[in-house]
Amino acid sequence: MTFTRPPRIAVGPAPDVSFEEAIVRGGGVPCRLDEQPDALVWTGGPAEFPASLPESVRWVQLPAAGVEQWLESGTVKAHPQLTWTSAAGAFAATVAEHALALLLAGVRALPAHLAASSWTPTEFYPHLGTLRGATVGIVGAGGIGRALIPMLAGIGAHSLAVTRSGRPVPGATETLPVERIDELWPAADHFVIAAPATAKTVRLVGARQFAAMKPTAWVVNVARGSLVDTDALVDALSTGTIAGAGLDVTDPEPLPDGHPLWSLPNAIITPHDSNPPALRVPAFLEHVVENVTRFASGAELVAVVDTSAGY
Amino acid sequence: MTFTRPPRIAVGPAPDVSFEEAIVRGGGVPCRLDEQPDALVWTGGPAEFPASLPESVRWVQLPAAGVEQWLESGTVKAHPQLTWTSAAGAFAATVAEHALALLLAGVRALPAHLAASSWTPTEFYPHLGTLRGATVGIVGAGGIGRALIPMLAGIGAHSLAVTRSGRPVPGATETLPVERIDELWPAADHFVIAAPATAKTVRLVGARQFAAMKPTAWVVNVARGSLVDTDALVDALSTGTIAGAGLDVTDPEPLPDGHPLWSLPNAIITPHDSNPPALRVPAFLEHVVENVTRFASGAELVAVVDTSAGY
Repeated sequence: MTFTRPPRIAVGPAPDVSFEEAIVRGGGVPCRLDEQPDALVWTGGPAEFPASLPESVRWVQLPAAGVEQWLESGTVKAHPQLTWTSAAGAFAATVAEHALALLLAGVRALPAHLAASSWTPTEFYPHLGTLRGATVGIVGAGGIGRALIPMLAGIGAHSLAVTRSGRPVPGATETLPVERIDELWPAADHFVIAAPATAKTVRLVGARQFAAMKPTAWVVNVARGSLVDTDALVDALSTGTIAGAGLDVTDPEPLPDGHPLWSLPNAIITPHDSNPPALRVPAFLEHVVENVTRFASGAELVAVVDTSAGY
Repeated sequence: MTFTRPPRIAVGPAPDVSFEEAIVRGGGVPCRLDEQPDALVWTGGPAEFPASLPESVRWVQLPAAGVEQWLESGTVKAHPQLTWTSAAGAFAATVAEHALALLLAGVRALPAHLAASSWTPTEFYPHLGTLRGATVGIVGAGGIGRALIPMLAGIGAHSLAVTRSGRPVPGATETLPVERIDELWPAADHFVIAAPATAKTVRLVGARQFAAMKPTAWVVNVARGSLVDTDALVDALSTGTIAGAGLDVTDPEPLPDGHPLWSLPNAIITPHDSNPPALRVPAFLEHVVENVTRFASGAELVAVVDTSAGY
């Protein structure tokens, strides 16, 4: 669909000058929701989303990269006539960088170093590894996985990606289709979980998978807590089945006070802050500019939500 | 100089099958020190080094990347007829990876995260940064600095290198000669110290330099402790003049128990283990193969010690 006039785009739930500027930069005209907009840029959650929208609205831009809350809440289903786009990809580079920080911290035993108060190099020697020449299993090669691969390559690590289709992911040393994911666990040295949360990915990584990994493996989760079986992880970390875990997401989330993960010396917990506001907002604004530009010219939007796949 | 026969090369202070194999792989013939060797591969320190060597020896391969102990002890001076090579460059990639681990851990506030036992993302938000789009000042662009630059580029960081000559370093966004180093401190977002320890680099980074840095800056030292004024660093870390420091080397070293750096929450100390034996020995063996190959064919050796420059 193309426009003979600039598209009219509302921002909600609250007006916001930064987003109005982004709409103008993309070639749109900011308007209120009751002024017959063609599209809506939403900066809030599903709870505040309007039960009904003006019939003029054809596209809604959501602020999250993972949209399972929007699907589970029925919000998307309640508006079947709309095209929905997520922010998938907008935050990929910053989350991938966070995943790399967690992985390198694990491989270089920084948690144990930070707990030390004496100069004892020989105690650390057995726990120090390198990503150079190592193989990192990347579960899910969407935006985050694809952003991570060149970072790993710069350090000399190989990427073994697992995707739904198994089509070769650019830069990955090898790509496996998800049907062959069981080959991944013994083959890779470390793992980054970066797949969407769907019914099919719930507890994708559990006791059997940890048991198949190398005891030197670090597992980093920057996707959603639901992809990892937390009890099995606590067990694997406590018994040394794997070397450690870096978690930006947990299940349950927020992780309650007193949870065993807080006190395990080989768990690094970051409270879903891999994409903090100071980095998130500018990245989302650029994403809005991009999609408004595409909307105005009738081009395909980026990060269109696939309601059947669930992301 | 070229050989009409394979060069004879001794290993000291103790015989070692791995090094003898490396000599054979490089086209040399292993022999004992009293069997008129052409060269000596030394795996020990300066204290055990022979006071006199057979006149047949023309080249000594040392096991360390930084050779200031060998120069200060007078060992090199006592044998003016010899060519000395260090292991500079052999360990560059693994030390650069360690520097990156420390830098990313700082930028992503992992020390504070590891100290937490409650899910409080908003407390971390003000302290979370990114290397993407940031400028990393690299003081000294020898092997480590040059290995680090492509790793940083993979994350989207710019490198601002400082070298003796100021000749453009491959991959660096800009290179400054050391005379202009004062421009570096306010210009870069973070710093990696990777210059050799010489008389000219003692306390290169002190109170004045910390004061010129951004308060969000992390300073990583993977070179030698002597390059940083420790008292000034403790002060800068305590007062928030800079955000934090990642130190693989310290002054004094070993860092004594009870030193303030151990208890500062924004200091990450790794006890000179960025290049642990499990990674060091294979890398040094490859370096020996390379230099024996060059020695046998009369090619220029790598990492020849410049006794006047001090590295």
